[in-house]
Amino acid sequence: MKTLADLGEDTLVQLLTRTLRRDDDVLLGPGDDCAVVRLPRGAHSLVLKTDTIVEGVHFTPETPARWVGRKAMARVLSDFAAMAATPRHALITLIAPPRIWVKRVQGIYHGLAKLADEFEVRIVGGETSRGDQLSITVSLIGYVPTRKWITRSAARAGDVLYVTGRLGGSIRGRHLRFQPLVKESSIIAKKLKPTAMMDLSDGLAKDLPRMARASGLGWNLWLDQIPITAGCSLSQALNDGEDYHLLFATSPTLKKQALLECQALCPGVKFHAIGELTRDEKTGLLETGGWDHFL
Amino acid sequence: MKTLADLGEDTLVQLLTRTLRRDDDVLLGPGDDCAVVRLPRGAHSLVLKTDTIVEGVHFTPETPARWVGRKAMARVLSDFAAMAATPRHALITLIAPPRIWVKRVQGIYHGLAKLADEFEVRIVGGETSRGDQLSITVSLIGYVPTRKWITRSAARAGDVLYVTGRLGGSIRGRHLRFQPLVKESSIIAKKLKPTAMMDLSDGLAKDLPRMARASGLGWNLWLDQIPITAGCSLSQALNDGEDYHLLFATSPTLKKQALLECQALCPGVKFHAIGELTRDEKTGLLETGGWDHFL
Repeated sequence: MKTLADLGEDTLVQLLTRTLRRDDDVLLGPGDDCAVVRLPRGAHSLVLKTDTIVEGVHFTPETPARWVGRKAMARVLSDFAAMAATPRHALITLIAPPRIWVKRVQGIYHGLAKLADEFEVRIVGGETSRGDQLSITVSLIGYVPTRKWITRSAARAGDVLYVTGRLGGSIRGRHLRFQPLVKESSIIAKKLKPTAMMDLSDGLAKDLPRMARASGLGWNLWLDQIPITAGCSLSQALNDGEDYHLLFATSPTLKKQALLECQALCPGVKFHAIGELTRDEKTGLLETGGWDHFL
Repeated sequence: MKTLADLGEDTLVQLLTRTLRRDDDVLLGPGDDCAVVRLPRGAHSLVLKTDTIVEGVHFTPETPARWVGRKAMARVLSDFAAMAATPRHALITLIAPPRIWVKRVQGIYHGLAKLADEFEVRIVGGETSRGDQLSITVSLIGYVPTRKWITRSAARAGDVLYVTGRLGGSIRGRHLRFQPLVKESSIIAKKLKPTAMMDLSDGLAKDLPRMARASGLGWNLWLDQIPITAGCSLSQALNDGEDYHLLFATSPTLKKQALLECQALCPGVKFHAIGELTRDEKTGLLETGGWDHFL
């Protein structure tokens, strides 16, 4: 088996990029100084996100290569879901030790490219560098109609909080296998008109305060309503992180019928109302009872 | 002095992003799931590039923080110069050990942001992760009028090769202090109509073959015409790398007057004709005499 040191950078890049799909709107793909893509007709705003996973932090040396690549791509797709945006073109930055097996790097790329393909995302370029610790950074651009994106910061007091599935215990497999909710998020955006939305990557205990702070609000969690992965405790559901479910807030006047229709269109997830946003910003932590204990 | 472990991610991000400049076309800046920027009116194509620098590879623990940040931004700006494209919005991915001083991270960000500002580039988002080895990845997007970008692959046999300055010995300081030739490259594009262009990051010995290969050509270097940094050998000029000068090819029928005019408009650099591209792809290496020795 060959290592990166046997191969050299140019051969590696050729190996990794030769099977990448390339659509008409990729005007200049991998291999030049930059990539160039054609903007969609009538596009007004561009969505940008970068995310990185590091060996020993987000995956282990034992994690199968394809799952490593898949996770790197899935995480940033999940951020696009959180904005109700459509992802389109990706750049990959790989830092790897020279002694890594070429086969492992290829496996990572296959994982990246396969999930990208499922979401009609094309890898148009990237960069490789030597380093002691393996990491994969995915930078993704895409589109959203102007003012149709959903931020974290426009929720209103009284809005009801929903999550799209059970929380906690992601380490048992979900952190690698989760499906980014890109399609679901655009259905939610249309049907439920969320005032704020984000993806749960660091755990509800860390992410909900971020949304509330961004909106200048507090919150009241209905702790007995939080959907918990079988075999997990409430504390795990709140703190484990890497759930990659969507957290969103909608008007309390939302019709139950709209929620049922939306639920029917998103068979892969289940909506759970878990609390509400409140006017009082400062006492949010205390109002949730045992909350500060989990933080 | 505080470390990242004392501060936590959210406080760090607030600290790093609060002084970032923000223009009208940044519709959603740092702090949400993604960034959103307004596309320029009439923009048809988007230019994308990512690049990374790693401690121990591209800089040392002793390199002053601002120069580390500056280098990370300068390298990717240099890739935009190589395409004659205009950079505009950047995402920063920082991998850092928890024990790093916050002051060093802030210094790196100052270096990134200061050079970005000089080039009217705005940092619109980013990501931070824990890792054993410090690295900074910059992903940059920008614009170029459709079909006005300059690739590596459209050079023709007989084209003359130019570099924009002396090569070799970059480690003495140029690798940190070089000025990305973004403005100069757009002047070169207009005045000299280069058929191919790239920036010299890995040394002429590695980069010229890349351009020639991409264009399906060989080359003939005029070794006695290669501009060498004072105190360096020819071998260093060819192999040291990190020159960040532009290498471009133009028609042999280019008028000397055009070159003089272009030179007058680019007082910070000096054009040197160093060889020509040849039809025979296969013997390129041998034709340059001692070339294979340097590889």
